[in-house]
Amino acid sequence: MTRTPFNDFNCSLARTADIIGDKWTLLILRDAFFGATTYSQFQKNLGVARNILANRLDKLVSYQVMERRQSKPGVERYSYHLTERGLALVPVLVAMTQWGDSWVLGEGNEPIEFRDRNSGQKIAPLRVLSRQGEPLDTINIVVAPGPGADERIRKTLGTKDQTK
Amino acid sequence: MTRTPFNDFNCSLARTADIIGDKWTLLILRDAFFGATTYSQFQKNLGVARNILANRLDKLVSYQVMERRQSKPGVERYSYHLTERGLALVPVLVAMTQWGDSWVLGEGNEPIEFRDRNSGQKIAPLRVLSRQGEPLDTINIVVAPGPGADERIRKTLGTKDQTK
Repeated sequence: MTRTPFNDFNCSLARTADIIGDKWTLLILRDAFFGATTYSQFQKNLGVARNILANRLDKLVSYQVMERRQSKPGVERYSYHLTERGLALVPVLVAMTQWGDSWVLGEGNEPIEFRDRNSGQKIAPLRVLSRQGEPLDTINIVVAPGPGADERIRKTLGTKDQTK
Repeated sequence: MTRTPFNDFNCSLARTADIIGDKWTLLILRDAFFGATTYSQFQKNLGVARNILANRLDKLVSYQVMERRQSKPGVERYSYHLTERGLALVPVLVAMTQWGDSWVLGEGNEPIEFRDRNSGQKIAPLRVLSRQGEPLDTINIVVAPGPGADERIRKTLGTKDQTK
């Protein structure tokens, strides 16, 4: 199957999906956040084919989501670390995990928990909030063209009633 | 390339990635949230090959993320709608969009904005919050085994120092 690159879509979600919208990539990011750094740690955790793992790590490095560091000078061994850009993906990982907790595995079956380091308490469910910090139900979240909207976006958003 | 189903991974993120960890699926969900309901609307918005679109819509219906409704009795025309389960993915879509806004397109170039229906104001950036509602920096978010953790998860989390 040919995959079309989404770079020509003027949409932040499409651009993000182009970088991390792949199952193995998401699991590599998860494991990196959990502390895996070496090729063999990722390989062992995920049981993924070597060529797929190498491909996904290269891609994450090329997008500066992870950086590759040489473990020792003169030795061809590397470790992989989330960059600031990669760490900024934590809300995506948390949102996906919490959805799986609620809608796939169900409450009480959560395999992992994200916790507040200081209190040791489980974090709060991720909620979309208004500017004033009030939780917004989905029905109260609307989509509008932003400052970078092009004609196509304006047209798509203008002709749809997303409230139904 | 063969894709391994992730159902055997005891992990909510893996289960979610198995359902929506695909670029086209994410864009279909986006468009559904924006108001697209018919096959031809998705097709036109995305410019996606018909077999890929049909495959992804079928999958979303089979996972009860979307439901297929017959447009008119006796006519083989259908519309597709996000279920409650599908609407619960909005935080994932928002998190991915905001990451793309911040780290790919940059501030001021946002093609779309999520807004509070009542005030018309842009929503707040999605933040991971503690139980008490305090924003948590990534460094203060730790991962621990949850009530549904198996031996493998305990071992993986026990042997990694995720703070470095």
